[in-house]
Amino acid sequence: MKLKDYWDYRHIGEIEKDGEIKGTVKVKYGFADMLKGGVVMDVTNAEQARIAEKAGAVSVMVLDKLPFDVRKVGGIARTASVDKIREVMGAVSIPIMAKCRIGHTYEAKVLEAIGVDLVDESEVLTPADEERHIWKWPFHTPFVCGARDLGEALRRIEEGAAMIRTKGEPGTGNVAHAIKHMRRYLNGIEHAKKLYENNDGQQLMATARTLKVSLDTLIETCRLGRLPVVNFSAGGIATPADAAEMMLLGADGIFVGSGIFKAEDPENRARAIVLATTHFNDPAKVLEAQEMIDEQKTMFGIETDKMELSMQERGADI
Amino acid sequence: MKLKDYWDYRHIGEIEKDGEIKGTVKVKYGFADMLKGGVVMDVTNAEQARIAEKAGAVSVMVLDKLPFDVRKVGGIARTASVDKIREVMGAVSIPIMAKCRIGHTYEAKVLEAIGVDLVDESEVLTPADEERHIWKWPFHTPFVCGARDLGEALRRIEEGAAMIRTKGEPGTGNVAHAIKHMRRYLNGIEHAKKLYENNDGQQLMATARTLKVSLDTLIETCRLGRLPVVNFSAGGIATPADAAEMMLLGADGIFVGSGIFKAEDPENRARAIVLATTHFNDPAKVLEAQEMIDEQKTMFGIETDKMELSMQERGADI
Repeated sequence: MKLKDYWDYRHIGEIEKDGEIKGTVKVKYGFADMLKGGVVMDVTNAEQARIAEKAGAVSVMVLDKLPFDVRKVGGIARTASVDKIREVMGAVSIPIMAKCRIGHTYEAKVLEAIGVDLVDESEVLTPADEERHIWKWPFHTPFVCGARDLGEALRRIEEGAAMIRTKGEPGTGNVAHAIKHMRRYLNGIEHAKKLYENNDGQQLMATARTLKVSLDTLIETCRLGRLPVVNFSAGGIATPADAAEMMLLGADGIFVGSGIFKAEDPENRARAIVLATTHFNDPAKVLEAQEMIDEQKTMFGIETDKMELSMQERGADI
Repeated sequence: MKLKDYWDYRHIGEIEKDGEIKGTVKVKYGFADMLKGGVVMDVTNAEQARIAEKAGAVSVMVLDKLPFDVRKVGGIARTASVDKIREVMGAVSIPIMAKCRIGHTYEAKVLEAIGVDLVDESEVLTPADEERHIWKWPFHTPFVCGARDLGEALRRIEEGAAMIRTKGEPGTGNVAHAIKHMRRYLNGIEHAKKLYENNDGQQLMATARTLKVSLDTLIETCRLGRLPVVNFSAGGIATPADAAEMMLLGADGIFVGSGIFKAEDPENRARAIVLATTHFNDPAKVLEAQEMIDEQKTMFGIETDKMELSMQERGADI
């Protein structure tokens, strides 16, 4: 997997196994695409993972601590214990995700060696490199990365991410930041698309440079009218209505972090959020989902304007 | 030539004429390539053009005023008079180049309509757009652009330039800036190549973003070990030894601006610079070329550190 050995570096993550080529871009993008319309739930042990699976989660994200507790505890947040990940892998049959630190290539290699299905290079953990994200093409495992706007999303895709999610503000129970980030993608794409439709290559080139992405990637985005990979929403989603709102705004699916197991009604809430995500276009169904939860039992949350640590800023400008 | 109508925007400059496809990337790059090893001379009238052609110039650049005079006169420097360009076109049979202002798309369209063989989007004229260069892909005529380092060169190539030249410091007779720019390309390429050889995709990606170019263009440059288009030297070349020095440093050819017709011995000097450029690897021939000129007759020049106007800064960071 040397750059020199490939005409197109997008293939450097491919490996031959059992006579087949694994880890192609098609497979990585395709795996992420299969999660579309679903909910990924943060879990810290096998029991939570079973609740998530039973509620209809399409995948679970294994952590040592939920984002809310990462904030509370402070210190340096790192990738989860290997034992914890193996415990969850043994407990459920849905795909397993785990987080590594931004720019920490070796944590990601360890996760790949364990055999997780997808790596989240996540701002919830303490960034290991403040100037570089992981160069993700050499992995055969797909990656998801957070982003706050079109430029950040496309930069991660150019590094090899197979899936994007809004950063939002993890562990806060405040959906405002996820909404802000989703709107920013949409506005960014609309702006670029208009230039493309108007045949204004000069300004499109200038826009690509402002976003720090290649013109080719930006033009592909204009042609598709959306990000070239699936785009989930994460960071502050706590209720079924939150999930439905994000889907309505154009999210391809939902990550719920602290929102489920920091609530007092995790089983109901997990089922309710799946219901609302699946039927986001049907307000009657979302109402039914909202009825399943009790606002008194929703995670109390953190006021983001009084917050000391803004996780969304991590790795944002690089 | 709408962006939407082409899968690859690099083809938007192609036109059908007499049953053939003209203006392909191959033809544009190929035309510039054919000038390799040669000298392009700035001329302001038919008589000078004839002297240049007779001396063996591969092409002439038509201007109203030589760069030295542009500096002296001041004011806004614009593309040459149509009459002047037509006069020179009628006088010689070698290819004709003409300059347009940085970012002035319509001046370039006028030059294309006149039928010049190559357009120089040049910092010698007053930039018309301080934030954007011309989007050059929609033209069927090839462009040359100045650059001071690898990033600037690759940005111009990504906009559609078929040829690059050092900016140097035009009209000064001081070769130091052309040398500095050539060294910067070389160092930039060496640095990127080392990352590529070391398989350090992460840092190569970071470098591409610093240079504000796509990773694909940077990797192509690493593979070639040089710029993907021909790279001439310009800006301050006044003697045969100057020309030979630039060729030795890796220039593919030479532009001489004020150096010939601001000297007191233009005919000899033109022949001498062609001789030195052709035989830059043979010091005896370059000596012979130096003997043909008289240092007393060389343009007196301008001390670049006391200069009010730095032309090389124009359009450099965009």
